[in-house]
Amino acid sequence: MSDFSHWNKEGRPKMVDISHKEETKRTALAQSTVSISEELYEKIQKGGIKKGDPLQVAQVAGIMAAKNTPDLIPMCHTILLQGTDFTFEYQQTEQGYDLLITAEVTCKGNTGVEMEALTAVSVAALTFYDMCKAVDKSMIIKETHLVEKKGGKSGDFYHPNRS
Amino acid sequence: MSDFSHWNKEGRPKMVDISHKEETKRTALAQSTVSISEELYEKIQKGGIKKGDPLQVAQVAGIMAAKNTPDLIPMCHTILLQGTDFTFEYQQTEQGYDLLITAEVTCKGNTGVEMEALTAVSVAALTFYDMCKAVDKSMIIKETHLVEKKGGKSGDFYHPNRS
Amino acid sequence: MSDFSHWNKEGRPKMVDISHKEETKRTALAQSTVSISEELYEKIQKGGIKKGDPLQVAQVAGIMAAKNTPDLIPMCHTILLQGTDFTFEYQQTEQGYDLLITAEVTCKGNTGVEMEALTAVSVAALTFYDMCKAVDKSMIIKETHLVEKKGGKSGDFYHPNRS
Amino acid sequence: MSDFSHWNKEGRPKMVDISHKEETKRTALAQSTVSISEELYEKIQKGGIKKGDPLQVAQVAGIMAAKNTPDLIPMCHTILLQGTDFTFEYQQTEQGYDLLITAEVTCKGNTGVEMEALTAVSVAALTFYDMCKAVDKSMIIKETHLVEKKGGKSGDFYHPNRS
Amino acid sequence: MSDFSHWNKEGRPKMVDISHKEETKRTALAQSTVSISEELYEKIQKGGIKKGDPLQVAQVAGIMAAKNTPDLIPMCHTILLQGTDFTFEYQQTEQGYDLLITAEVTCKGNTGVEMEALTAVSVAALTFYDMCKAVDKSMIIKETHLVEKKGGKSGDFYHPNRS
Amino acid sequence: MSDFSHWNKEGRPKMVDISHKEETKRTALAQSTVSISEELYEKIQKGGIKKGDPLQVAQVAGIMAAKNTPDLIPMCHTILLQGTDFTFEYQQTEQGYDLLITAEVTCKGNTGVEMEALTAVSVAALTFYDMCKAVDKSMIIKETHLVEKKGGKSGDFYHPNRS
Repeated sequence: MSDFSHWNKEGRPKMVDISHKEETKRTALAQSTVSISEELYEKIQKGGIKKGDPLQVAQVAGIMAAKNTPDLIPMCHTILLQGTDFTFEYQQTEQGYDLLITAEVTCKGNTGVEMEALTAVSVAALTFYDMCKAVDKSMIIKETHLVEKKGGKSGDFYHPNRS
Repeated sequence: MSDFSHWNKEGRPKMVDISHKEETKRTALAQSTVSISEELYEKIQKGGIKKGDPLQVAQVAGIMAAKNTPDLIPMCHTILLQGTDFTFEYQQTEQGYDLLITAEVTCKGNTGVEMEALTAVSVAALTFYDMCKAVDKSMIIKETHLVEKKGGKSGDFYHPNRS
Repeated sequence: MSDFSHWNKEGRPKMVDISHKEETKRTALAQSTVSISEELYEKIQKGGIKKGDPLQVAQVAGIMAAKNTPDLIPMCHTILLQGTDFTFEYQQTEQGYDLLITAEVTCKGNTGVEMEALTAVSVAALTFYDMCKAVDKSMIIKETHLVEKKGGKSGDFYHPNRS
Repeated sequence: MSDFSHWNKEGRPKMVDISHKEETKRTALAQSTVSISEELYEKIQKGGIKKGDPLQVAQVAGIMAAKNTPDLIPMCHTILLQGTDFTFEYQQTEQGYDLLITAEVTCKGNTGVEMEALTAVSVAALTFYDMCKAVDKSMIIKETHLVEKKGGKSGDFYHPNRS
Repeated sequence: MSDFSHWNKEGRPKMVDISHKEETKRTALAQSTVSISEELYEKIQKGGIKKGDPLQVAQVAGIMAAKNTPDLIPMCHTILLQGTDFTFEYQQTEQGYDLLITAEVTCKGNTGVEMEALTAVSVAALTFYDMCKAVDKSMIIKETHLVEKKGGKSGDFYHPNRS
Repeated sequence: MSDFSHWNKEGRPKMVDISHKEETKRTALAQSTVSISEELYEKIQKGGIKKGDPLQVAQVAGIMAAKNTPDLIPMCHTILLQGTDFTFEYQQTEQGYDLLITAEVTCKGNTGVEMEALTAVSVAALTFYDMCKAVDKSMIIKETHLVEKKGGKSGDFYHPNRS
């Protein structure tokens, strides 16, 4: 188990120096799952035809949030993202439906894009909540985690929960 | 069940007009839970003495994020927040520990602060992840939801999962 | 003809004091027209069925830009917008098609929302350009202007070009 | 005519992956024209001597906006701009004067700076409008377009309207 | 001497609740002094005639920074500023010149604008430094302080150093 | 003594073209000193044990501000910072205590990080002021300057006041 890397000698957080790290291609995949009621799911499906799709707004918000990660997460480095995309999938559950939000972020840089991918799916999930909260405020964002990351000295990572 | 409120007649999202809504005191309480391993928990506790506390950074990031909510969530109105605070609590579980992050946001305005509270806990959880990810990347933000909201015409709301 | 209001005695720009102005309901309507080729128009129409609609992204970007106006226009006051919406309309012309982008912005405040409405349509037009520029870079944003404003001491304004 | 590049397979907008594109020097030149009355022109000229110059503020706002382009245009990549400059020119017309605002933006990157140049002139034009709107609200931003771009695989581009 | 107001019971910083505070007119005046060499001063004066004035850019940057204060200072509330203006004054000293930068900020709100005024003069001073640093990097921002504040329950404040 | 580099031929400020400058490792060290009363110092020391530490918040704010420098200082280029850290030191003086805030910023880029380091210490000093102003509003940020910079064609720089 590695050491914490964000604290300086005085016990305060620092933005760690990454100048010794190699500039390589790096990708990260994160996922967030929103649990919704059957009623809301059906309302979205019907509304989708007539009105539009909350996933459109969630995707735009998530992509913008990926770019804004260093403004939100204090110790994150600014990174030039090279690509960001989402997939959305509804799965029926016992209580209703799960919306699986997955984002993939790519960069060529000195440090990884895990936080960018996690921020992207979190803000997409929050935006979905905002778009639908007039119908149902009890939605739960029930699991957000890093699915995998590739590139960089610490090697590839695959989450134990990866489906 | 109410109608969706974010779409206009052409089927595109709008920022809904809130000029008819009354300016009242409104509060919202949201919670996010991060599931961590026992090893990470113990490292934080020990590290906490010598080095500092990731919750400090998470709290600062969460408060700043609450203020930035309208920059992140496209259809959110800008609201003048009157107060924002957090509580953090570790609870032992079968697999390790749960960190419960709770934020309370207060405003006097024409619309509620649910999204501000949810954004605050989400960004605090992401920041906690960032501060500790050098030790363990498999942490899961396992549940984010609105706990309660008060004020406004639609009345008070208490989440069924509220502990 | 009124005096310039943005310069101080030393000849430098200031954010004018609006504390003496009354807090009233104010609205502003602005329009921007993008001139596109027939080929692009048809590609959008076909693409629209299979792929989605650049106007969705333009509308989200325009609404977020309306909120960000004081970060873009140096002497603009921060205002709490109460509503923002768009209409889009294609009109056939001799050279191809005109896309008319109209935004209406509402607030209750001490100063008007003309700049918010103009910024909203400008950023929506730029976003439309960005979404389609892989197909045609010669699009022209051929007219952006304030259509009307209501509320405030200086009275209502209707642009001579208002259709 | 190329295909749209901003939509994914699910029909939603993505930030396209530019990791395969070469890092080269790229420049873009954009122009926006503001049509103003003779009275306003003369007021600016006189005021210019005693008070200052709205073009100063427009130029500062335009340069800051060029840097903020990825925060405004959802699918734009963050790019490290290497230089941004403006020229302003008044031309007499039959109805009054035209202010020609031209911005040149330079970078070394994997993708072009067309949107940065277009955003720079658009925000400069809006800022000019804001500085002068107390005198005349009927100004028209009558043409905004990309004049030329250089560098990158798709080759150089010169707008047909380029003077 | 009052108690610290930014820490919660758990020892972490919070955004204090201001909902009980009265909404009144509040002003704050802050000053920053930049010490420069005689050579730089003379270069600015000559340059000023031919080229322009670094104070123009400093003033625009300072006004924009006043509006951005809650994005910079973590525990600051978002406040709707009603006016912001600057005065600049050069004073000859034994070693060269002092540039006195003074900003006055006005609002009607539940909390004061001391931080907005201090941020405004600090960013104006930094911008002046940036504009002139190619000539002289050894400039010193030698004193930044709150000169006076008015309005609010804690009463008016006048700094002992107020000239 | 070099020429000013931020003005174009028309006498307006520009973002200078740095495309000809070499991409090298660059560091900058800046310092800001806050003069506080003995009473405040002792209150912080006592409070520090029970409540927490204003330097924690100041450090987080300073690191975030270093990243935001191009949004604050109009003519600054966006640079990818590779590391940012702070040291804080209290020194007893005749009137009370001096808090020395020092920031070191590192990058690999075409231009230096002097403004990033100066912005970091300025915002850290302002944040410290904000955290403590309920106790004492007469604190003075008494000296902010560049201590040293390394890397880049213009060579290394050491401030004459460097202790």
